[in-house]
Amino acid sequence: MTSKPLPQHFTVLVRAIPVSDGVSVSDAVDKFFREYHSSTYLSHTVVHQTGKLRRLLNDAENICTKLTNLKYVHRSSGDAPRKFLGLFGRNDLLGQYQKRLEDVEENVRLEQSDATRRQEIPAAFVSFRSRYGAANAIYIRQSDNPTEWQTEHAPDPHDVYWPFFSTSFMERWIAKFVVFVASILLILVFLLVVAFVQGLTYLEQLKQWLPFLRNILEIAVVSQLVTGYLPSVILLFISSYVPSIMKLFSTMQGFVSVSGIERSACNKMLRFTIWTVFFANVLTGTALSKAEIFLNPKEIPSKLAVLVPAQASFFIAYVVTSWTSITSELTQTAALFCHLLGKCAKCCRRDDSKAPSMPYHSEIPRILLFGLLGLTYFIVAPLILPFVLVYFCLGYFIFRNQLFNVYAPKYDTGGKFWPIVHNTTIFTLVVMHILAIGVFGIKKLPLASSLLLPLPVLTFLFNEFCRNRFLPIFEAYSTESLIKKDREEQNKPEMPEFFSNLVTAYRDPALKPTQRSSNSDERTAPLLATM
Amino acid sequence: MTSKPLPQHFTVLVRAIPVSDGVSVSDAVDKFFREYHSSTYLSHTVVHQTGKLRRLLNDAENICTKLTNLKYVHRSSGDAPRKFLGLFGRNDLLGQYQKRLEDVEENVRLEQSDATRRQEIPAAFVSFRSRYGAANAIYIRQSDNPTEWQTEHAPDPHDVYWPFFSTSFMERWIAKFVVFVASILLILVFLLVVAFVQGLTYLEQLKQWLPFLRNILEIAVVSQLVTGYLPSVILLFISSYVPSIMKLFSTMQGFVSVSGIERSACNKMLRFTIWTVFFANVLTGTALSKAEIFLNPKEIPSKLAVLVPAQASFFIAYVVTSWTSITSELTQTAALFCHLLGKCAKCCRRDDSKAPSMPYHSEIPRILLFGLLGLTYFIVAPLILPFVLVYFCLGYFIFRNQLFNVYAPKYDTGGKFWPIVHNTTIFTLVVMHILAIGVFGIKKLPLASSLLLPLPVLTFLFNEFCRNRFLPIFEAYSTESLIKKDREEQNKPEMPEFFSNLVTAYRDPALKPTQRSSNSDERTAPLLATM
Repeated sequence: MTSKPLPQHFTVLVRAIPVSDGVSVSDAVDKFFREYHSSTYLSHTVVHQTGKLRRLLNDAENICTKLTNLKYVHRSSGDAPRKFLGLFGRNDLLGQYQKRLEDVEENVRLEQSDATRRQEIPAAFVSFRSRYGAANAIYIRQSDNPTEWQTEHAPDPHDVYWPFFSTSFMERWIAKFVVFVASILLILVFLLVVAFVQGLTYLEQLKQWLPFLRNILEIAVVSQLVTGYLPSVILLFISSYVPSIMKLFSTMQGFVSVSGIERSACNKMLRFTIWTVFFANVLTGTALSKAEIFLNPKEIPSKLAVLVPAQASFFIAYVVTSWTSITSELTQTAALFCHLLGKCAKCCRRDDSKAPSMPYHSEIPRILLFGLLGLTYFIVAPLILPFVLVYFCLGYFIFRNQLFNVYAPKYDTGGKFWPIVHNTTIFTLVVMHILAIGVFGIKKLPLASSLLLPLPVLTFLFNEFCRNRFLPIFEAYSTESLIKKDREEQNKPEMPEFFSNLVTAYRDPALKPTQRSSNSDERTAPLLATM
Repeated sequence: MTSKPLPQHFTVLVRAIPVSDGVSVSDAVDKFFREYHSSTYLSHTVVHQTGKLRRLLNDAENICTKLTNLKYVHRSSGDAPRKFLGLFGRNDLLGQYQKRLEDVEENVRLEQSDATRRQEIPAAFVSFRSRYGAANAIYIRQSDNPTEWQTEHAPDPHDVYWPFFSTSFMERWIAKFVVFVASILLILVFLLVVAFVQGLTYLEQLKQWLPFLRNILEIAVVSQLVTGYLPSVILLFISSYVPSIMKLFSTMQGFVSVSGIERSACNKMLRFTIWTVFFANVLTGTALSKAEIFLNPKEIPSKLAVLVPAQASFFIAYVVTSWTSITSELTQTAALFCHLLGKCAKCCRRDDSKAPSMPYHSEIPRILLFGLLGLTYFIVAPLILPFVLVYFCLGYFIFRNQLFNVYAPKYDTGGKFWPIVHNTTIFTLVVMHILAIGVFGIKKLPLASSLLLPLPVLTFLFNEFCRNRFLPIFEAYSTESLIKKDREEQNKPEMPEFFSNLVTAYRDPALKPTQRSSNSDERTAPLLATM
């Protein structure tokens, strides 16, 4: 209620616009919304095919970065006499790059100006005069044919993932299928890794596999390190690569916004973490016995009650190892390494001036995993609790600092990660209940075990209540708040200006010629001045 | 697009209206909709607590019917001298009933006129000036708190199930739970019956169970009848009672409309039919082995391929027996029996002047079951096909006749039973594919078996397509059609009259004094006139 008017509140993304011959997408959109939303329709921006243009811009960006680096190197080693010959060679390179940059930018300008060459995509951002008008267009089906004129919330203009629009329906469909197969393969590969890591905790097995290590492994320190600490280090190291893979997968799936991509990646990551890190480590043994436990629902509690405590020491080590990962978050070791590596190779690829954004899709699943560990183990192995507590305390202070001082938010999450957190917590609670039932069953306390049975049921009821009470709030604003807000703003003096900005808010950044060239000028200008 | 303007198109049912102290529900509704839907809001009708009134009206109705019957008997046997004494007694009874009817009607009038005695229920029918206005109120969440001001499509005024509104939230909640438990119990009871029926097909077992029948069972005709025909007769006879039980369950669940109740009963009935009639008969054996088949997904096809053909003869007999049931539909045997029984006992309870409505909830599941039988057996026992074909042909002609000449539709189904039929057909197709895979597997044709694997996948994809393309049409009208229709009707001369009728369309029939008394007059008048 207190937010300023933002473009995404007034805008709707329309897809699958049907186009008859001879009529452009732009005209079709204009006609349709003028007819059915005459009182609230403001303007529209049709999305264009900009794949080629984007490639050209990328080229220009790359050359520009290389040029900047070269100039930087030039400047810093310019008065060192031992590099005179090298300097000459570089200067030549500098000229070459500058020539290429000019060529590419000429191409970009040509491509941008030539509107006829660009193909229209049957998708458009349609802006309305009021929030309620936009809501009307979103929540009521527009066309008689449900596969046409599909509307949805428009993302923040900075949050739009433009390359997606260039892909065709078929491409997206195939991409979805590929992502599905790839996710399964990834989990299978990871399960093999976990099996190997689990093997490390049994030293004898390792000696059998790798006989040449026998001598080293017999040293007490090494063997303790290998069995106690190494498995979780390997697991953490490998799983640190998974978030970026998952994000790549989500990108391929075709979301219209970066936030959508990150939310989907977060979901994928969560499922991956819980299955490969938690369940795969708990359910040691062959794949067959793993499948069997879920096929026999009656035995799940008792089996879990046996299997979960057995892995307590491994998970305690895992939590302790994670302390390092969370402190490396503070020191940004990975970024530092990357930067140093780039400096060493004298070809730092990215420009480091931009602050990174918070990687929600990798951090949220990790934190939720520790919640799961804490809640499930507090019955069978309470020793894990102080370690998890330390993790959460460290996490609180470190992420508080990071969010305030280090990361720059790329988009407003709008609290849309909360439902994910809520669902996972409910799942965690139910796992805990089942485990407790199993533990009491094993300890021959059938009364305690059966008294616990209502707990999961109550948890589900609570979940159902929350779904009804709170979930709709995350999905849509209400008529009440929309109309109140509209009326409040109706007579504000800044609204005409906002609406005139709104008309151009959803232009593809690839099509903004002035911004791009001034940007590159800005970036190169100070460096040139210091020469 | 061609339908006349109907009250349900312009009306929204609002529930969970929050009421602050001292403000009536009516005022709250008026204030809310005048504020947020000022341009389209027309009027509203608050629902009242009419449980007591409805009981009184029921009493009046009962007495009235009894009176009518008495007068009918009086008239028909008036000039039979052997009943003179009886007639005198009846005449006295007639006077008594008339006295009681007057008392009850006085009470009804008192109750109806005393508006202060009636409690308002936080639910109201809100009418709008345009279809699009109503759609706006339905599809956009009204209040900031999603549990308040919940809106939904209003049913046809004749279709509203009024008693539901009298129940409190807690009562409905408990009713839902009771219905859930009762449904499970019903299926369990029915499974026992099926087990018994299945026992009949194995004559030896029956002889063991009921040794005193040994002599009778050894007659060839009897044994053939018992093993071949009796099981399906019993099954059909018992299952003929289930639809009304299911409808009772759905009524308890709290739907606002009769059509909603019947749709829910149809769904329940369908699940019941497929599980108890099809699967329970196919999966003979102990309950444990039944559960096991679904826990081992890999073996489902091959097991089904063994079990399904084994019951072919039973299902052929079942189809043949159903011919009788569908012809009894033509002759309305049940209704005739009821009528005759009523006449014999001289206390026909219902007035038979009203035409019955089509019992969709019992007929649709039965027809879909035969579709399932036809599709699954056409691979393993094609002999069933002609029998199913005869059933469908009979069904086509009989139901065509019944729908045109016998049944009077109580409400417009709006095609909302189609999605149920579609989903069941998809399920049937998938069962058929699985069965085919299993059969080819057993016949040692692994290539044919694996070539069939894409079929279920394609079926699911087709289902997904239909869900996207056609399902939304069943759920809501589009902006396009709503606005077109609104504009078309805007200047029609009959609209002002329609709107003035709309204001009173959703009044509880229990609160309509004139209609009720005139109705009863109408009903009794012709009979008195003929005396």
